[in-house]
Amino acid sequence: MKKIEIVQGLLDANNATAAGNRALLDRHGCTAVNIMSAPGAGKTSVVLRTIAGLDAHVRTGVIEGDVVSTVDAEKVQGTARAVVQINTKGMPESCALVADMVDAALRRLPLEELDVVLIENVGNLICPTEFDLGEHLKVVIASTPEGDDKPLKYPLIFADADAVIINKIDLLPYVDFDMGKFTQAVRDLNAHAPFFALSCKTGEGVAEWVAWLRDRTRKA
Amino acid sequence: MKKIEIVQGLLDANNATAAGNRALLDRHGCTAVNIMSAPGAGKTSVVLRTIAGLDAHVRTGVIEGDVVSTVDAEKVQGTARAVVQINTKGMPESCALVADMVDAALRRLPLEELDVVLIENVGNLICPTEFDLGEHLKVVIASTPEGDDKPLKYPLIFADADAVIINKIDLLPYVDFDMGKFTQAVRDLNAHAPFFALSCKTGEGVAEWVAWLRDRTRKA
Repeated sequence: MKKIEIVQGLLDANNATAAGNRALLDRHGCTAVNIMSAPGAGKTSVVLRTIAGLDAHVRTGVIEGDVVSTVDAEKVQGTARAVVQINTKGMPESCALVADMVDAALRRLPLEELDVVLIENVGNLICPTEFDLGEHLKVVIASTPEGDDKPLKYPLIFADADAVIINKIDLLPYVDFDMGKFTQAVRDLNAHAPFFALSCKTGEGVAEWVAWLRDRTRKA
Repeated sequence: MKKIEIVQGLLDANNATAAGNRALLDRHGCTAVNIMSAPGAGKTSVVLRTIAGLDAHVRTGVIEGDVVSTVDAEKVQGTARAVVQINTKGMPESCALVADMVDAALRRLPLEELDVVLIENVGNLICPTEFDLGEHLKVVIASTPEGDDKPLKYPLIFADADAVIINKIDLLPYVDFDMGKFTQAVRDLNAHAPFFALSCKTGEGVAEWVAWLRDRTRKA
């Protein structure tokens, strides 16, 4: 039983740190959003569209999570008020952000100048479900080329989501993706999360998502 | 140091089981291929095209890995000579196949009637790199809608690959994907792996991949 006990110990420690992160964010009136998806579903594109959409109303900071590289932080720099890159390389935490990493990143962000912190998780539909980061909202992004069966194969991340984004709807004419099948599969797992079908490429549907998120910030 | 020691102990045990798997496969003259990609890149479509392409020459069995569900095994059933589904749910191994799971699956396959075993790993670009399954070849699939920066962000899986497949080239006119940038990023990590640019939807490029794989089987 030693292995399972240690895993449980790690998760308990993570939850305690996550609670601290949430308290810190709350003291500053910041809403934190944990953005999760498979690799290449468009997390960074959603982050960029979201910053632009919120910009007139609320001040947005970003925490970029990746195993290695600063590719995403470089894309976001210049649009967000502040960006911190986390590289998760190392074992065994490398497959997702954990609360400790977000704690370190939050200490480097000017929280007193921010209303929203977008946390772009590592591209992974499995591991991020294990780790509370202290976020207020969990958002999962699926993209149409991935296929409509993803909720069946990665149910937990869809079951826990506060909102589900279906990105790359501009590709619908070219891929086998049944929107009805996808939304029904999510609804079977999650009775309440709203759906936002959008294209970061064309901008279609982005406004509805941004309006929903803005309503959930403290400075709405 | 206890946490790291235990992780190392798990990996040592995994490697020992993987060596046993490889010996079992070798006794039966079976070539095993570990097929890895992000969720939705087209692992199952590649498996289906590969079975069809190899069919006249070699006998193919399949091990389907998923966190939950039998969606993929159902698709493959009827084309492969034999299919075994592994569901990896449970912690902490849920994010990838490990050698123990493949050991159990190999015992349920009629290896004496097979030349190739295609092992479809869980959709994940990070965790599968930690676990030797006893395979002879590692193949990583990327798909064009994911973007050309994946090797920069998930380098280990590309560095370790014996072959790299770029799937969904039928979508190239509709997505931002620079093939030169992608192949250069892989080449910077991996000097030798061949590239196969293909579309499982149209069949373009599939023959080259199948011919390469066939040359690497014992019954070529």
